[in-house]
Amino acid sequence: MLTKNHNDICAYKGNIIWSSQLGKLQSIEKGYIIVQDNNIKGVFSYLPAQYNNITLKDFGNKLIIPGFVDLHLHAPQFANRGMGMDKELLQWLEKYTFPEEGKFSSLDYAKTIYKELIKEIWKQGITRSVIFSSIHKNSTRLLLDYFIKAGLGAYIGKVAMDRNCPDYLIQPTEVILEETEEIIIAYNNKSNLVKPIITPRFIPTCTPSLLKKLGELAYKYNIPIQSHISENFREIEWVKNLHPEFENYAEIYNHYGCFGQVPTVMAHCIYNTEEEIDLMNKNGVYAAHCPDANYNLANGIMPARKFLDKDVKVGLGTDIGAGHKLSIKDTMVSAIQASKLKWLKSNKTLKWLTIEEAFYLGTKGGGSFFGKVGSFEEGFEFDALIIDDTPLGTTNISLKERLERFIYIGDDRNITHRFVGGKDISKPNF
Amino acid sequence: MLTKNHNDICAYKGNIIWSSQLGKLQSIEKGYIIVQDNNIKGVFSYLPAQYNNITLKDFGNKLIIPGFVDLHLHAPQFANRGMGMDKELLQWLEKYTFPEEGKFSSLDYAKTIYKELIKEIWKQGITRSVIFSSIHKNSTRLLLDYFIKAGLGAYIGKVAMDRNCPDYLIQPTEVILEETEEIIIAYNNKSNLVKPIITPRFIPTCTPSLLKKLGELAYKYNIPIQSHISENFREIEWVKNLHPEFENYAEIYNHYGCFGQVPTVMAHCIYNTEEEIDLMNKNGVYAAHCPDANYNLANGIMPARKFLDKDVKVGLGTDIGAGHKLSIKDTMVSAIQASKLKWLKSNKTLKWLTIEEAFYLGTKGGGSFFGKVGSFEEGFEFDALIIDDTPLGTTNISLKERLERFIYIGDDRNITHRFVGGKDISKPNF
Repeated sequence: MLTKNHNDICAYKGNIIWSSQLGKLQSIEKGYIIVQDNNIKGVFSYLPAQYNNITLKDFGNKLIIPGFVDLHLHAPQFANRGMGMDKELLQWLEKYTFPEEGKFSSLDYAKTIYKELIKEIWKQGITRSVIFSSIHKNSTRLLLDYFIKAGLGAYIGKVAMDRNCPDYLIQPTEVILEETEEIIIAYNNKSNLVKPIITPRFIPTCTPSLLKKLGELAYKYNIPIQSHISENFREIEWVKNLHPEFENYAEIYNHYGCFGQVPTVMAHCIYNTEEEIDLMNKNGVYAAHCPDANYNLANGIMPARKFLDKDVKVGLGTDIGAGHKLSIKDTMVSAIQASKLKWLKSNKTLKWLTIEEAFYLGTKGGGSFFGKVGSFEEGFEFDALIIDDTPLGTTNISLKERLERFIYIGDDRNITHRFVGGKDISKPNF
Repeated sequence: MLTKNHNDICAYKGNIIWSSQLGKLQSIEKGYIIVQDNNIKGVFSYLPAQYNNITLKDFGNKLIIPGFVDLHLHAPQFANRGMGMDKELLQWLEKYTFPEEGKFSSLDYAKTIYKELIKEIWKQGITRSVIFSSIHKNSTRLLLDYFIKAGLGAYIGKVAMDRNCPDYLIQPTEVILEETEEIIIAYNNKSNLVKPIITPRFIPTCTPSLLKKLGELAYKYNIPIQSHISENFREIEWVKNLHPEFENYAEIYNHYGCFGQVPTVMAHCIYNTEEEIDLMNKNGVYAAHCPDANYNLANGIMPARKFLDKDVKVGLGTDIGAGHKLSIKDTMVSAIQASKLKWLKSNKTLKWLTIEEAFYLGTKGGGSFFGKVGSFEEGFEFDALIIDDTPLGTTNISLKERLERFIYIGDDRNITHRFVGGKDISKPNF
């Protein structure tokens, strides 16, 4: 029987806004979310009688929205944000990314930077992230431990590279596989919120043998995979030169069991062919749309609408350090802006992303990679942000307008509480 | 003779960064700026002997940069920021902009919103702005008074419209001219920092007779002019239909004495022809580049490089409420991102804007519209921001990298002091 102050059930009251499907925005003014055992029982405009005696947390006129989900970011590039932005991808990797990643051979350096990273992810209301760490096993374990301690959700992958990068970032194929497996065994069942993910950086830095064995490892342990695809013309050309035997970029990953054989996220997807997009749909591969990163490295714009029209699963990624802002809210705005340029360029055939759609992509769109995450439907894990938007102006406007305004002009200062997997992490444990 | 604590002369010490010409970034580590009678005497890497006894303010390891300059914003759209962003320009004017502007017939409403606007401009380190108010004389006077009180620099213009807009925003031509002249007489010599500017909204809302008389008024009092040009295809088509007798959009303004006959700013310039760009150069007309607004209303991208290559004067504008963020620093990033897309689209012929160039545009580029503003050269007014970038990461990087990082990932919390026209306004008077 439910009793007052029962630990495992609670009602949260406020202006509730969520999106359960692309383009649909649901909201309830001064409504109630019932959370039991960290999962959502239901959302109601009144408090159902059977919950009359449970603990009620009333957030007044504030907004309650799902936590933000970042489908693609590079942890060891945190300190590089906003620097070297006048470079193109391959030069930028050489001059900024690789040297910085090299530093994570030092656990002390990793401690300093990863502590700051976690603080920023927490601050920005990103409750779930899909993360590249570096090639370093110990720094990767540290990052997994930090996330577990902080109570934030994440998939974290030790980066795999066995060719075409500086010596200090190359590992022998066998060592990569051993260390990757060691992490899987140590962390796969350690936390419900924080898990390992297999992470071939991209085709140019992974031999076919490595890709194949990573694919097998993923399949053996049912561990998801993340990588990059079709970010830049020169990169695509390079991949073609390395693998003339394949029809396209996606087919290489697919051939080696790294393209949806387990849940897979591919970042960027700017220049994918129709065949590749169809394959993503068929294999259930996620696209991580990272508009700011794609602007910053002068790579172009992913035609997100094309992917959505073909029912490919799409989420948003900040892609720091190519992206500069570790904010999914800001990434929603960039995705909308990017889609408006695509709309113009396509002679108005590719419709732009609406605010409802961008909000979906940055919550449930990416959240579904984690399971029942990113929405306020029954059975979903309770990941939520409480938003005080009174500093942004009048609240005598619609909830949709309040949400849109927060997304466009709010910032972390408007987030007063954060919940992940049902837990209040407003007093963080860094 | 100079004595210690002499009121009119002072040295500021810190890491000084400024740009005196497009593409050039100057910096002095732990340098000195000498300011006398609100103007800069010089910038030095050591303290010249003759200044040994003057007041020294040491900002330690902080950055000292010129204040930001916003060449285009709509004050009465402040409360509209980040709303209705799924609309195109003409629909957006009808549904959001015009109804909101109508509210400024109430001085009480203006007091509420304009107080918040000024706070935000101050907060974001925008030391000079070129501003459209609404058609309302009293609200416009209020805005001028608020800026004077706050010690922030601005040109502020009562908007002129005598056709093609809702009844409640139309005024008879003669009333517009009377009220505009009244404001000019009252405010032209009231403050060194805050001045009136003549403001025909754009061709569709101004009859030829109004334009002509506004041009004459501007010339009579030597008052600058601001307006909009070539923001959107439908707008351009509308202008063509209204004035088939003119070769292009710019020629209409030019014919009526509103295109450089006095100092002039034209916002947007997305689709100007080569002839129009040449005319802007010839007449010294400023282009206010508003990349975020242009994205948000799905208008396209101004090819800033083309204008710069033709020596047109260019500055940056936030264009709130079409732009959502009242931040010139963020507008620099958007301008760089936009130029990278233009670079791609032009088959790499239009070079993208570098960080140095964007920094110039948002400081001296726009600042020169105010005279000697936006740089730390001798004789320039001392408009400056003190930046504490230690929360952004290590400071063991170059000053250029620290500046770039602040521009990309910093925010108002990094600005610890603000100076306008030599005065410290860190404790604002709102």
